[in-house]
Amino acid sequence: MACEWVEDGGVTTPAGFRAAGVVAGFKRSGRKDAMLLVSDRPAAVAAAFTSNRYAAAPVQYDREIVGQGRPVRAVFVNSGNANACTGAQGLANARQMAALAADALGVLPAEVLVSSTGRIGVPLPMEKIRRAVELAVPALSPDGGHDAAEAIMTTDTRPKTAAVSFTVNGRTVTLGGTCKGAGMIAPKLIPCRPCQATMLAYLTTDAAVEPAFLQACLETSLDLSFNRITVDGDSSTNDTFLALANGQAGNRPLTDEHPDAPAFRDAFTTLAGRLAREMVLDGEGVTRFVELCVTGARDNAQARRCAEAIANSLLCKTAWFGADPNWGRILCAAGYSGVETDPARTRLDYDGVPIVRDGMDAGTPEKDQVAAISKREFRIALDLGVGDGTFTVWTCDLTYDYVKINADYHT
Amino acid sequence: MACEWVEDGGVTTPAGFRAAGVVAGFKRSGRKDAMLLVSDRPAAVAAAFTSNRYAAAPVQYDREIVGQGRPVRAVFVNSGNANACTGAQGLANARQMAALAADALGVLPAEVLVSSTGRIGVPLPMEKIRRAVELAVPALSPDGGHDAAEAIMTTDTRPKTAAVSFTVNGRTVTLGGTCKGAGMIAPKLIPCRPCQATMLAYLTTDAAVEPAFLQACLETSLDLSFNRITVDGDSSTNDTFLALANGQAGNRPLTDEHPDAPAFRDAFTTLAGRLAREMVLDGEGVTRFVELCVTGARDNAQARRCAEAIANSLLCKTAWFGADPNWGRILCAAGYSGVETDPARTRLDYDGVPIVRDGMDAGTPEKDQVAAISKREFRIALDLGVGDGTFTVWTCDLTYDYVKINADYHT
Repeated sequence: MACEWVEDGGVTTPAGFRAAGVVAGFKRSGRKDAMLLVSDRPAAVAAAFTSNRYAAAPVQYDREIVGQGRPVRAVFVNSGNANACTGAQGLANARQMAALAADALGVLPAEVLVSSTGRIGVPLPMEKIRRAVELAVPALSPDGGHDAAEAIMTTDTRPKTAAVSFTVNGRTVTLGGTCKGAGMIAPKLIPCRPCQATMLAYLTTDAAVEPAFLQACLETSLDLSFNRITVDGDSSTNDTFLALANGQAGNRPLTDEHPDAPAFRDAFTTLAGRLAREMVLDGEGVTRFVELCVTGARDNAQARRCAEAIANSLLCKTAWFGADPNWGRILCAAGYSGVETDPARTRLDYDGVPIVRDGMDAGTPEKDQVAAISKREFRIALDLGVGDGTFTVWTCDLTYDYVKINADYHT
Repeated sequence: MACEWVEDGGVTTPAGFRAAGVVAGFKRSGRKDAMLLVSDRPAAVAAAFTSNRYAAAPVQYDREIVGQGRPVRAVFVNSGNANACTGAQGLANARQMAALAADALGVLPAEVLVSSTGRIGVPLPMEKIRRAVELAVPALSPDGGHDAAEAIMTTDTRPKTAAVSFTVNGRTVTLGGTCKGAGMIAPKLIPCRPCQATMLAYLTTDAAVEPAFLQACLETSLDLSFNRITVDGDSSTNDTFLALANGQAGNRPLTDEHPDAPAFRDAFTTLAGRLAREMVLDGEGVTRFVELCVTGARDNAQARRCAEAIANSLLCKTAWFGADPNWGRILCAAGYSGVETDPARTRLDYDGVPIVRDGMDAGTPEKDQVAAISKREFRIALDLGVGDGTFTVWTCDLTYDYVKINADYHT
């Protein structure tokens, strides 16, 4: 890889970004629940949002702002309330949320993006939003990335951050990121329009990047990161993926034709992929991470459809929890996904161990099958035997703890 | 209703049907695991089978037989082994299974239909099939309906049978039925071709019914019975729904134009609906039965797609388990189902209690919301506000026991 991981890196690792995470009172637990991320200078922005038809108010607001194509200065996020299904007042509240932060920062309201995550259908308590601004602005710091990552957590058990550095025009540039999401995770992000799950992800960079190229990098990364994960198949009303580039590194702005464009694109995808993977590893109740690769489909779209059916099958997910090698459940899910398959040429492997050949049991002793899927992370490879289509998803098991967490949800 | 329930009725309640349920050794538990159902005279047959691309060998065999359009004499079923994903040998075994029963009964192999349910991918142990025939034939009895119902169970906790009687040409005719299915239940039965989940259902009647009309009745019943249920969204390789009419009642054969056609069709749908409902009530780990009615969709297909997304949402199902009124999860699932909605006109009720009006919280106190969904059975009505499309599904909650049952599956 042309890029290097920065130890303990996050959204404030790139130059010219400051952040804060504060306790504003949205969460009953008393934990941090508001994040403010600020770029010292106007930053180009790229985005993808949920495709959910009940897109939350902050998503509606952000789409409008991003659609204007102008640079932004800040992202203001609360956890503990989704501001979704809140009607016209919800949208007015999202606007005011941006305006309050803008006022305190001395920037224009249209330079502030907002996100919310938490319970749907509850009016956003604006006095807590005000309190969040009052506390966060003075707390902004170039070392605030970790606090910011904590503040966007809901059922996450740990903050998720990372950063990479590499070279553009001979100058070191840095890409940092943070994300949250553990349940309601099956993003179907639509570029500069929608993504899926309540996942929130923010990437920052001090590189100078032309907005169109930044958006292209974000779109390229989707199928290799957030749009390839699913925890529970539920796609949220609030999913948001934003990338901000402030140019502080002083490189010649990156475009598609810049000699370092591939390095930037690769670093972007690598970082987004790592954050997406972390999200699954920290998924609600998760004990196993499964990389599921479908090949031999009629086309990539069919491979994706098949992989998603398996990844979201309750019978497959519970079998993984129990390390039950019952491969019939995987073929069954492939079979009802509606994609073309050739049963007589179907092949399946668990972490390199042959499980199905020619659509039938490959004869591997059961103890070896069990061993292959008793790991914390393993890979399942399914070949449908009909074409060249391929797609990989990252998913997880379904456990008692998932049920426990979600049968009694209160942020 | 023009028909009456027959107490303790089942597949042998109609005249001219005998059945047996025996222990052939497929199940480690030592419980009954083979059913034989015989009509004393040739019976018209109607059928629907799984749409799964990895359709099991017995389904492939039955499709061929049913496709010939000739009367049949018997249905032979084993539980504990699905004979699915077993290749050419599996199909040969299904044929031999029919032939062995036919030999012992003195009928043609093409007059015997077969079904299997249980673990996928394990070769069918033919010595146990032989043993099943040897035990079942002498045990055939007009009182064998209950034993038959027990013999097809897998993770079911109780046998499911029912019968109704009504009048055709002034003669009393009877419709009886049995089914099994608790997990891998989300039938998408295709008429005389496929249904979904390992559900097996068999209806018998002593009425004389023209095959085309019998098939029409079966198809009419699908969306009001087996194709409206989902336990876990997993559609099996083995789903089968067969109806047999042997004419023993001596009525003028029922066709679409027979004056008693509506009575027969209604009774058929009523019986199939009751069996389907029983399947959900006995679903794996189920503690709550939910009737979910989507209205106001663009068309019925969109209403179905929306209802299925909600019914299969892990977040909705776990919320029902916990009697958590968190309605945002329902709107969220409707929103990612991809169907047209009008957020500002969306309405939601829990068992008649207003929950959402105009896409926002209806203001019902939380304790009243909780009370509405704390019952063993309740109804959820969602209006999408865009058209006249409607569809109802019967579904259930997702519990610790579902995970327990499926994380360690052995028949």
